[in-house]
Amino acid sequence: MKALEQKITAEGKIFPGHIVKVGSFLNHRLDVNFLMEMGEEIARLYKDAGITKIITVEASGIALAVCAAYKMNVPVVFGKKASAKNLSNNVYVAEIYSFTHKKSNFVAISEEFLSATDKVLIVDDFLANGEAIRGLISIVKQANAQVAGCAIAIEKGFQGGGDKLREEGVRVESLAIIDEMTDNSIKFRE
Amino acid sequence: MKALEQKITAEGKIFPGHIVKVGSFLNHRLDVNFLMEMGEEIARLYKDAGITKIITVEASGIALAVCAAYKMNVPVVFGKKASAKNLSNNVYVAEIYSFTHKKSNFVAISEEFLSATDKVLIVDDFLANGEAIRGLISIVKQANAQVAGCAIAIEKGFQGGGDKLREEGVRVESLAIIDEMTDNSIKFRE
Repeated sequence: MKALEQKITAEGKIFPGHIVKVGSFLNHRLDVNFLMEMGEEIARLYKDAGITKIITVEASGIALAVCAAYKMNVPVVFGKKASAKNLSNNVYVAEIYSFTHKKSNFVAISEEFLSATDKVLIVDDFLANGEAIRGLISIVKQANAQVAGCAIAIEKGFQGGGDKLREEGVRVESLAIIDEMTDNSIKFRE
Repeated sequence: MKALEQKITAEGKIFPGHIVKVGSFLNHRLDVNFLMEMGEEIARLYKDAGITKIITVEASGIALAVCAAYKMNVPVVFGKKASAKNLSNNVYVAEIYSFTHKKSNFVAISEEFLSATDKVLIVDDFLANGEAIRGLISIVKQANAQVAGCAIAIEKGFQGGGDKLREEGVRVESLAIIDEMTDNSIKFRE
């Protein structure tokens, strides 16, 4: 999505360790009109996929998930982060390791909000190593539901998580894929 | 908002300790079309207030904030929860005590995303004792910005936080106010 690449180039801030911060529009300040454009693009990409539900993880996936869901006329269910001792009963759970925060979190979704008849679209703001996506895929499988695919705002292509999922047959649509980053430039995949 | 009262009555689950769970549409599963109706009602209530920005707290305030922002054509900034040691520089910070989780969290908003010219609407899913709202008001004041008011989905009127804020001159608009709860019934304020 050209407009997203332009926005990352214009507003993104690069930090050491291949970190690009897009807090001005995607995950701290939310440019809701632009998020709706992204949601519309996600709806276009998955218009024939028979999606019945979008899932994401709190907190920074929620805004994009809501916008995509609005354009697709489906509900969202967001995974809640929990420590092992705070997990309630009757939930599907996955343990997700965050390379950014160097720790594991449990993510839980209530059994009542995901069922075997669901065709699920997984939405998130970033995809790097793919740990969060794998956790959500595990949750969908626990419910015997079907993963129709993933829709990501920004994929860090150079970290390989997205391509590995694609090799395994998972449909991954990223609106922008960063293939190379230096301290002052970002190169997107064609 | 009659439709919200009806939805709480139909789908809300009452638990001991005056807890009403509305995870089926407001803060776990998200009924995005209904959230948009709530967002439209918030936009109507504040249409003449000159709002430039909506702020909320992650995670469960984000969805309603995004929907209200879409209807009002303004951006959202959501406060991020952080522990004392994870606070970054250049942020406005408030310490918020959660009676639900019986612990304090710091909530931070980057200085760059809130400025003295902003007229801010504070949005959240629940208001009980008002601690989260007071934290966000403190953040707006640190930025020398103006609090135009608050918009809440569900206020627990019997806990008094909303009325105390109103007595202090803060505009608080709640789409549903629960004045009494028993184990099997909910009474809304007229």
